[in-house]
Amino acid sequence: MSQIYDRVALIGLGLIASSMFWAIKRAGLAGEVTGYARSEATRDTARRIGLCDRVCDTAREAVECADLVVLCVPVGAMGAVAEDIAAVLKPGATVSDVGSVKRHVIQAVQPHIPEGVHFIPAHPLAGTEHSGPESGFAELFDNRWCLLVPVEGSDPDAVARLRALWEGMGSSVDEMDADHHDLVLAVTSHAPHLIAYTMVGVADDLRRVTDSEVIKYSAAGFRDFTRIAASDPTMWRDVFLSNKDATLEILGRFTEELFALQRAIRTGDGEHLFDYFTRTRAIRRGIIDAGQDTDAPDFGRGKASS
Amino acid sequence: MSQIYDRVALIGLGLIASSMFWAIKRAGLAGEVTGYARSEATRDTARRIGLCDRVCDTAREAVECADLVVLCVPVGAMGAVAEDIAAVLKPGATVSDVGSVKRHVIQAVQPHIPEGVHFIPAHPLAGTEHSGPESGFAELFDNRWCLLVPVEGSDPDAVARLRALWEGMGSSVDEMDADHHDLVLAVTSHAPHLIAYTMVGVADDLRRVTDSEVIKYSAAGFRDFTRIAASDPTMWRDVFLSNKDATLEILGRFTEELFALQRAIRTGDGEHLFDYFTRTRAIRRGIIDAGQDTDAPDFGRGKASS
Repeated sequence: MSQIYDRVALIGLGLIASSMFWAIKRAGLAGEVTGYARSEATRDTARRIGLCDRVCDTAREAVECADLVVLCVPVGAMGAVAEDIAAVLKPGATVSDVGSVKRHVIQAVQPHIPEGVHFIPAHPLAGTEHSGPESGFAELFDNRWCLLVPVEGSDPDAVARLRALWEGMGSSVDEMDADHHDLVLAVTSHAPHLIAYTMVGVADDLRRVTDSEVIKYSAAGFRDFTRIAASDPTMWRDVFLSNKDATLEILGRFTEELFALQRAIRTGDGEHLFDYFTRTRAIRRGIIDAGQDTDAPDFGRGKASS
Repeated sequence: MSQIYDRVALIGLGLIASSMFWAIKRAGLAGEVTGYARSEATRDTARRIGLCDRVCDTAREAVECADLVVLCVPVGAMGAVAEDIAAVLKPGATVSDVGSVKRHVIQAVQPHIPEGVHFIPAHPLAGTEHSGPESGFAELFDNRWCLLVPVEGSDPDAVARLRALWEGMGSSVDEMDADHHDLVLAVTSHAPHLIAYTMVGVADDLRRVTDSEVIKYSAAGFRDFTRIAASDPTMWRDVFLSNKDATLEILGRFTEELFALQRAIRTGDGEHLFDYFTRTRAIRRGIIDAGQDTDAPDFGRGKASS
């Protein structure tokens, strides 16, 4: 793989940024990768483990002379970071991000992007339950989708170059507009996360069942929910606050359907339940056929246990 | 491991029964294991793959002379099977089951158990998204809990013997009463399953987001839900119909909490969301510490992909 950018700056050094660094290095996609994190402890950790070619003490220093700047901070912090670095952005550079919400990020970041700098929002659909600079690994994006969300007037050459970077990091790349992105993600990620958080919270509240029982006997089902509900609280707070409308729409539909199933349970309508459960099985089949998960037996123990 | 029963009969040959057979063979826990399934196709498959030492064409034939009979049929079918085999049960034999609900199974089965036969309900907390006679494997129960739910007057020696069988198959064994079992499982398994089914159904309904998008872009979150929602429809229909009260109680609490979180999103109460998400993270930690899951990175791809 050949070099795509001379210099890449990663702002924020959590799971996604650290994985990007290792994936860029694996394929030799950039000459130098600089990094910045707000917390001194994170910068120290990054220096200790060799994360980034150069870790800078300010975002501005990291961004200077960069051909690509990727904002890898929580969605709620994107606007302030963009404002901070705007004055030192190199003419012709590209600014991108990895936020899970796109409409809100565009509203927060675009006003700060100077004339002559390209802004191309992006969202890699990859993650684990872990966070922080030590959680990254080069393979995170392999065979996962990265969605580019070009804004009006995005330069096609700059978009093609960013696409090449993500493909070089192992991703498949698609483009869509911001509102559709936010709705698709509300269905496939944001609402499921809120639901998982809720169910885990309910278990914690229920005093007739002790915490130790919930933990000890957590079978498939709840155990998968706890994995989802272990994701970074700051990131997810920002996701829900900034993708409010789409998330609330999906949750509204969810509640409606849940009430219908509850009524079927209460009235003993087994046929309704059976038909519903049969339909959802087909969707699972589709995901496996699309190569987005495996159906290998996991010995009832969850991920990566083999 | 030494032999615990001379003859074991497995009634119903799905994931649990087939895994029991391979686990019993692995450790040499029984002299002969007979099997019966209602469907001729299942019996043919069992004979073809060597599942059970002897596959019988009737449940009665499988049960004759058995020291242990394990009912491995959906919860809704337990009563009829018990009635069918009652007359041929060997005096001093033990009848057990593997149903996910215990109060209902006890009510359906116990009236048919003859004097001099022990009835000891059980529930192994293990499973995968697969079902049928070919889905079993010897390791399914390793390090998973099996809950024994002795009924009033259960013979301690018979309970100890059944416990030894499950331990021999790799399980840890605990005992609890039926109502508490049903509540614990409503929290850790039944409600999470209904919720996952619902969320997958919502995605399927939403015409503004195409099925192929839901499948293609299903990130962690929704993908985990589809795994849960792929479980056997008949089994789960029966679980919800037979553990109605506990499941509806938990779903009621779930809806309450979900409404509170929805309100926090609507009003922009980030602190409420952050605190809630931080609390749920600790529960995940407890499950990993208890050895019921691993926290190894899974490359964003789900289970057993390494």
